[in-house]
Amino acid sequence: MTQVTTATVAQPDAAQKTNIIDTDVHERAEPHALVPYLEPMWRKYITDFGWQPDRVLPYTQYAAGGLDRLDAKLPDGRPGGSDYEVLRKQLLDEYDIDYAILTGWLDASGLHPGWPEFKTALMSAYNDWQIHEWLDRDERLLGSIHVNAHEPHSAAREIDRVGAHPRMVQVILYIKDKPFGEPYYHPIYEAAVRNNLSIGFHHSENAPTALGFHRYFIEWHTLVSQVFMSQVVSLIFNGVLDKYPELHIFMIEGGFTYVPHLISRSDQQYRQLRSEVPWVKRLPGDIIREHFRFATQPTEEMSLERFLQLVDWCDSDELFCFSTDYPHWDFDSPWESLPQGIPNDLQRKLFSENAKNAYPKMPALRTGTA
Amino acid sequence: MTQVTTATVAQPDAAQKTNIIDTDVHERAEPHALVPYLEPMWRKYITDFGWQPDRVLPYTQYAAGGLDRLDAKLPDGRPGGSDYEVLRKQLLDEYDIDYAILTGWLDASGLHPGWPEFKTALMSAYNDWQIHEWLDRDERLLGSIHVNAHEPHSAAREIDRVGAHPRMVQVILYIKDKPFGEPYYHPIYEAAVRNNLSIGFHHSENAPTALGFHRYFIEWHTLVSQVFMSQVVSLIFNGVLDKYPELHIFMIEGGFTYVPHLISRSDQQYRQLRSEVPWVKRLPGDIIREHFRFATQPTEEMSLERFLQLVDWCDSDELFCFSTDYPHWDFDSPWESLPQGIPNDLQRKLFSENAKNAYPKMPALRTGTA
Repeated sequence: MTQVTTATVAQPDAAQKTNIIDTDVHERAEPHALVPYLEPMWRKYITDFGWQPDRVLPYTQYAAGGLDRLDAKLPDGRPGGSDYEVLRKQLLDEYDIDYAILTGWLDASGLHPGWPEFKTALMSAYNDWQIHEWLDRDERLLGSIHVNAHEPHSAAREIDRVGAHPRMVQVILYIKDKPFGEPYYHPIYEAAVRNNLSIGFHHSENAPTALGFHRYFIEWHTLVSQVFMSQVVSLIFNGVLDKYPELHIFMIEGGFTYVPHLISRSDQQYRQLRSEVPWVKRLPGDIIREHFRFATQPTEEMSLERFLQLVDWCDSDELFCFSTDYPHWDFDSPWESLPQGIPNDLQRKLFSENAKNAYPKMPALRTGTA
Repeated sequence: MTQVTTATVAQPDAAQKTNIIDTDVHERAEPHALVPYLEPMWRKYITDFGWQPDRVLPYTQYAAGGLDRLDAKLPDGRPGGSDYEVLRKQLLDEYDIDYAILTGWLDASGLHPGWPEFKTALMSAYNDWQIHEWLDRDERLLGSIHVNAHEPHSAAREIDRVGAHPRMVQVILYIKDKPFGEPYYHPIYEAAVRNNLSIGFHHSENAPTALGFHRYFIEWHTLVSQVFMSQVVSLIFNGVLDKYPELHIFMIEGGFTYVPHLISRSDQQYRQLRSEVPWVKRLPGDIIREHFRFATQPTEEMSLERFLQLVDWCDSDELFCFSTDYPHWDFDSPWESLPQGIPNDLQRKLFSENAKNAYPKMPALRTGTA
């Protein structure tokens, strides 16, 4: 009864002909690295009092290198994504990446809302650190503005402060336990639109499942897609896409096999229950196809036939965008994670065009194919 | 871009040739109806002090008849499912149902754990009421043993008390906010196996989503599948099916379009992370195919081609079991809810054989085809 699947390996030659936008790459800042960029009054809370981000996940990631690919950890003990040169070698050069969208790690939106002024200052330091330590060093790197979503007006000010940087392409919101479609958060979307930015939602270690934190990591990690479904539903039914019709939203690090179910279920519920949300003018599936994109990692092994069925079920080949999640343990290689034999047109959309079309500030691809 | 779907109507003639086991039919007891069956010491809490089940859902169901089909509500104001004669006429006779599995409404497992002795007594009263008012009146009605899952040893005693009734076929557990695979709950599964019963998990109004109770009912109702995914994952990775290899488990009122994603995702995670749960000996998909069944309601409109793809994706045509959810507002008619043109063999499995094969105590079907 077991479905036989094998790791399908596309030839590097074929992949290298394709432009690649990697929509999920984690550069990593330990709090100490941000101290030079932090307003002086806040520095002592890291240097003297040892602030660390709160983390409610009761498990470790028990792969060989913990959260990271073992080979991405640095000899001095620093975690993967801490060093530009290593990231350049292992990712940008290795796979001939056109653009890598940096998605960070230390994001206040995925932390407890407490101590908001410190978190807001920390996110400003993070953005300046990201620009100076990463964006300024390689034109292939594109940035995500980190904000404290729990303070939407402060978040909007931070978006306005750094949003004009030519290679800041999105605002990233790590998911904790709040549905971000609520009107309370709309100043963030308004600021994103004002600055020509997309929004990226990213999983975090503080995001629960429908039944909280189960006994085992494997349970939690299997159910990661739930908070993405919840955010899509929250954004749609609270009218965010009706209010901000220019906005594009990326769902990052939740995989994509849940999308057909999400479209089918939300369309059915809309047909039956839409009187409650008269501001939503279209089927959720139509809103998803126009406004949402889903980063592919972590991919699940499947045959080409099933992958194409899955795309077909969504009634759009523009929803999925390739991502590696470098440097994490379940990194997806551009050459190995998706089935071999994807038709060229779809391959091009998956690896670059879909992302390019949903990031207003995306620079031109090197070979000019899209 | 919108997928064009139409309500597909199978001809009554074709459907009537098929045996039908309806795996989700709600008989309804208001607390007052249970008083005659309740141990005397507890009666005053209903008659004098007005106990009502706790309910945390902040919305109403805003269909024409509220929770119920408008035509299933009784002239005297009682809710749908309160009267046997109406249920017989509107469901059993109307659709020539072979067997209807009663799944109740007032289930302590979906309530707050507080006041456990009262809840345990109430569930005993419920079961006696169910036997006397329903099972004794029509051989087509099969019962679900109601228990207070929060007190597993008391629940097991109740299962032993009424489990020998020839038409009690399952233990039903309404879902609140606990993952029921935890060892704490295993006495319930042991008692079910001991009594030749299956387990049914049923949604409840107290079941949350990954991000709690969103602003609108349509959001909550769209995300109902999450707690079912969570329970399947909890049961599998906590080894319930390795420990009780005879057990069959029904997931009721969560639909079925989430199942391909659930299988694909959990298989992938098992391949990568199974060292954490060495007691789980097989791919989750294999465990699902052997042990789990999914009641079809609420169905989502889809073409026959997509329905068959979805079945194919599960690598089994034995997972889905037809259900109406009578008398609720989103009732699925046997003649109208699934696509027209399903091949006969699959149609037979969906409408009767799959359920029959997963309920050890299921009586013979009338026409002897399965």
